Amino acid sequence: MNLTPDAGGVFPIAPTPFNADGSIDWTSTDRLFDFYQGIGADGITVLGIMGEAPKLEPEESVGIVKRAAARMPGKPIIVGVSAPGFAAMRSLARQVMDLGAAGVMIAPPSSLRTDDQITGYYAQAVEAIGTDIPFVIQDYPLTLSVVMTPAVIRRIVMDNPSCVMLKHEDWPGLEKISTLRKFEAEGSLRKISIVTGNGGLFLDFEMERGADGANTGYAFPELLIDVVRFQKAGQRDAAHDIFDAHLPLLRYEQQQGVGLAVRKYTLMKRGILASDAQRKPGAALSAKGKTEVDYLLARLAKHDPRARV
Amino acid sequence: MNLTPDAGGVFPIAPTPFNADGSIDWTSTDRLFDFYQGIGADGITVLGIMGEAPKLEPEESVGIVKRAAARMPGKPIIVGVSAPGFAAMRSLARQVMDLGAAGVMIAPPSSLRTDDQITGYYAQAVEAIGTDIPFVIQDYPLTLSVVMTPAVIRRIVMDNPSCVMLKHEDWPGLEKISTLRKFEAEGSLRKISIVTGNGGLFLDFEMERGADGANTGYAFPELLIDVVRFQKAGQRDAAHDIFDAHLPLLRYEQQQGVGLAVRKYTLMKRGILASDAQRKPGAALSAKGKTEVDYLLARLAKHDPRARV
Amino acid sequence: MNLTPDAGGVFPIAPTPFNADGSIDWTSTDRLFDFYQGIGADGITVLGIMGEAPKLEPEESVGIVKRAAARMPGKPIIVGVSAPGFAAMRSLARQVMDLGAAGVMIAPPSSLRTDDQITGYYAQAVEAIGTDIPFVIQDYPLTLSVVMTPAVIRRIVMDNPSCVMLKHEDWPGLEKISTLRKFEAEGSLRKISIVTGNGGLFLDFEMERGADGANTGYAFPELLIDVVRFQKAGQRDAAHDIFDAHLPLLRYEQQQGVGLAVRKYTLMKRGILASDAQRKPGAALSAKGKTEVDYLLARLAKHDPRARV
Amino acid sequence: MNLTPDAGGVFPIAPTPFNADGSIDWTSTDRLFDFYQGIGADGITVLGIMGEAPKLEPEESVGIVKRAAARMPGKPIIVGVSAPGFAAMRSLARQVMDLGAAGVMIAPPSSLRTDDQITGYYAQAVEAIGTDIPFVIQDYPLTLSVVMTPAVIRRIVMDNPSCVMLKHEDWPGLEKISTLRKFEAEGSLRKISIVTGNGGLFLDFEMERGADGANTGYAFPELLIDVVRFQKAGQRDAAHDIFDAHLPLLRYEQQQGVGLAVRKYTLMKRGILASDAQRKPGAALSAKGKTEVDYLLARLAKHDPRARV
Repeated sequence: MNLTPDAGGVFPIAPTPFNADGSIDWTSTDRLFDFYQGIGADGITVLGIMGEAPKLEPEESVGIVKRAAARMPGKPIIVGVSAPGFAAMRSLARQVMDLGAAGVMIAPPSSLRTDDQITGYYAQAVEAIGTDIPFVIQDYPLTLSVVMTPAVIRRIVMDNPSCVMLKHEDWPGLEKISTLRKFEAEGSLRKISIVTGNGGLFLDFEMERGADGANTGYAFPELLIDVVRFQKAGQRDAAHDIFDAHLPLLRYEQQQGVGLAVRKYTLMKRGILASDAQRKPGAALSAKGKTEVDYLLARLAKHDPRARV
Repeated sequence: MNLTPDAGGVFPIAPTPFNADGSIDWTSTDRLFDFYQGIGADGITVLGIMGEAPKLEPEESVGIVKRAAARMPGKPIIVGVSAPGFAAMRSLARQVMDLGAAGVMIAPPSSLRTDDQITGYYAQAVEAIGTDIPFVIQDYPLTLSVVMTPAVIRRIVMDNPSCVMLKHEDWPGLEKISTLRKFEAEGSLRKISIVTGNGGLFLDFEMERGADGANTGYAFPELLIDVVRFQKAGQRDAAHDIFDAHLPLLRYEQQQGVGLAVRKYTLMKRGILASDAQRKPGAALSAKGKTEVDYLLARLAKHDPRARV
Repeated sequence: MNLTPDAGGVFPIAPTPFNADGSIDWTSTDRLFDFYQGIGADGITVLGIMGEAPKLEPEESVGIVKRAAARMPGKPIIVGVSAPGFAAMRSLARQVMDLGAAGVMIAPPSSLRTDDQITGYYAQAVEAIGTDIPFVIQDYPLTLSVVMTPAVIRRIVMDNPSCVMLKHEDWPGLEKISTLRKFEAEGSLRKISIVTGNGGLFLDFEMERGADGANTGYAFPELLIDVVRFQKAGQRDAAHDIFDAHLPLLRYEQQQGVGLAVRKYTLMKRGILASDAQRKPGAALSAKGKTEVDYLLARLAKHDPRARV
Repeated sequence: MNLTPDAGGVFPIAPTPFNADGSIDWTSTDRLFDFYQGIGADGITVLGIMGEAPKLEPEESVGIVKRAAARMPGKPIIVGVSAPGFAAMRSLARQVMDLGAAGVMIAPPSSLRTDDQITGYYAQAVEAIGTDIPFVIQDYPLTLSVVMTPAVIRRIVMDNPSCVMLKHEDWPGLEKISTLRKFEAEGSLRKISIVTGNGGLFLDFEMERGADGANTGYAFPELLIDVVRFQKAGQRDAAHDIFDAHLPLLRYEQQQGVGLAVRKYTLMKRGILASDAQRKPGAALSAKGKTEVDYLLARLAKHDPRARV
């Protein structure tokens, strides 16, 4: 089952569960994928930046993909394959597709500057992994330091038929979605799926601008599902009401560097992860930070009973 | 009246009002300062990044400072004097102090990398402007690309007695405030004022970590004043309640690049600015963006009557 | 006398002479311009990066331009007007043109990333200074962090008739010159002057690739003139012979940060500057560094008697 | 045989030979290592930036190390193990040490900014690979974008007993060597080996400042050996004479991006490599560029018969 441009909905970015000793917690891994399956996630992304992918041994990476495929049957699995060299990218991409992945996600290396460098990089990446593997562009300037204009994204999409999705997390990015959808309406860009990241911080309006869904890792992916469904159903106020209730916590989780610690702590409080451990090197949440998350959860629970932990 | 380390409260970052033709709208300028004075702002910062300072002619910059001094008597005025060279920085700093400013704010140039380069830069800046002018460190890595550890800030403060305030807008930054206050408690850092920027996105918790106030430009500075006052009075829940009501709009305004357009549009809707014009080059708000702000204002008005525009 | 696309030859980048107390040494300034005039320089660039322009007061900058105009009659004077805002850029550009400058040089701010941002910036700069002022693009990625492809340079040139010259100092840059000249041959780019910087480190081959001359500040501009003349006369070996003799010193001078100190020290040894002082903040040459320059000068003097100091 | 702080001399950075189809050319690989052994290289570095390491499959990387160990018996082999994650770094480091490597080289990731981030990274790297593996710090700001002060290098050395060597390629860097040697003389830094990179562009003076040797990939490593030997023997003029003869070509090879193409082309002309191919993506040398290298070789051959190809 390959990923297509018609994909949409919520693809959570899965964290990788670890035990306190740094080994992978496979029990929590299974529980996490079961949880995503249970709440109705439309797919999953593993081995992304928030999945601590560079810290994993090759066999561990493969193990994560196998578990996802086993626990979320029928759901497309996207695998991050960004690597400093095309040899490693190709190896991982071909291996995970054989294991049942639906597509791969490729982030540009931070050294790229000009439009031509960026489009050239994606052309080389496609040549490396093969034109038969559907891929997702990750557009995340804040972390990756690569700035892609809508016209550059259009060139990548039009030059590479295997490009099926944009993980949009430019910031600000609302106008970018509108511009890309205008390109489509004008006929200069073929239809691709646009799913948004950035922790979900603008998901409420991104859906109104034409996004197809969310591809981020907020510790309450149910909220992402709610917002996407309400917006697709035309229930604008309902979408904003539930979004606004979560915004204080969502904003707190969307802190560079410490965000993953907040996410894992919350998932642990929810009983999904056994531990909030990160493999070294990782940014821990301070005792004070934990009390702040607890306070935000308690406030959220007044509006959303799912936050009662 | 010089700025001191005891300063606190809310120092709005003032935008510069323009007419549609690009000239300064002095009537709106006066109205803006009157507004800040009327709501009880504790001071004001002019000629900052959001004040479009680099677009102003020298005489215009001086004019802004004069108006602020005239309209906000008794309130400390902080003036941004960041410049590519120390000659210009010195000229502007000495000139505005003569006009009644209480201190100046200095941002580091983006080329600085090592700890020694950063502390060396501030030493040179102080030598240039003179040790008699109180100054504020602007710590804003997201925009300025300069990363200062708490230890570097401590060195700047301890090496330069004229440093009285930190405009803290690192992101994430909660632990940084806690660390600096711990340094003070341990006796390795003298007391300085810490006021926070970053659009106010974490003001709720920043006050709990030990900040003295806010130094940012959200279009409802009354909200900043509310949060600071509630937190100083120990009314934690009240602070968070009003903060959370504003967070959807505040978050929308805190978008890099387009944020100033949102801010000016909102201030225009509130009747404080006659126009939301920016001097060229500026990022305009799209028609769609304006309807989004209108929607957020309407939703906010249900919780805060001051948002009825 | 306005700068035109037919300009060529050697335009030294003039340092600004200072006294030990940091004031401008006007006597040395006059002597420096007399020196350039005497050796047959084809023009001059003042207030560039190596002219310590950001450290100058406005009236000092104007003074430098006046002296250059007075001492180098009949020679085109290019003035660096790069500034953080367009108001300052416009003021300086119009002022120096009134004083007799032939054109201005504009470097892009380091925040620019995408092709559209770069071309947009130059469009705005031209709108600010006026379309009647000939301008030079400075393409110096190593220092400015802005990467312009040949296609981007072409867009700037073709969109802005007042663009007459490219100060080329990309590194590596030989293919860039060839590509731009190919664009011209194909008819997609109008003729502009290409003069090269980068300390002259590749001038020998740059001339063979189609450069029109040099626009850099090596302390023996006579060498630059020799290379340009030999190459224009088709005397390839002679050009390389004299170039190679100077290369050890030229390479030593082409060190980021400390290069200006080497340049000023050498000009002082040559009797052109009274002092090698830089206005603060500046990178001084160590005692050891001075002995190294002395050694290189002594070695050079065996091949080029002009180096006997 | 582990690398020690007493190491010195010339450690060429080995390119990886490829066939035109992108496969590794093992015959040329053997010939290359035989060549280094034959000219009296003191050791070798493989899998560095110029070795196209990120393009290699894991088994290929291991193969390169095996060949080096087999062909250069008795010579220390340094292996680049820089990786985006510590898991991969540890795996490669332990594997190559088992194969006979003498030590590993670690470059900092480009995201590091503050002094503490840099020293923290090396502490984590040592924890990952184990304290029993001697390691080399790579200090190459031009390419890696990480700026280390001498004090930061000192902290890394003093905090990590397994640090034995600095690959110094800061630019400019002469004063840095002097400062580090001063630290040693003062007793605040223990003795480490300092070998210099940067294509050898300042090797003549680096040796005079206290470097122990060269660790770079110029296509005539014999020149590096000559300069190091002459300088160690106190024959300053002889060192500079031979250095200056090579400088025009050496400078041409020291171009970012295209430098490796120049190096491989020259090694091919010398009969050491069968092809100048790079594995994709690689920067090819244009036809014009090749004639320029040919011209430089012909000129060099007049001074150094080894350049007759």
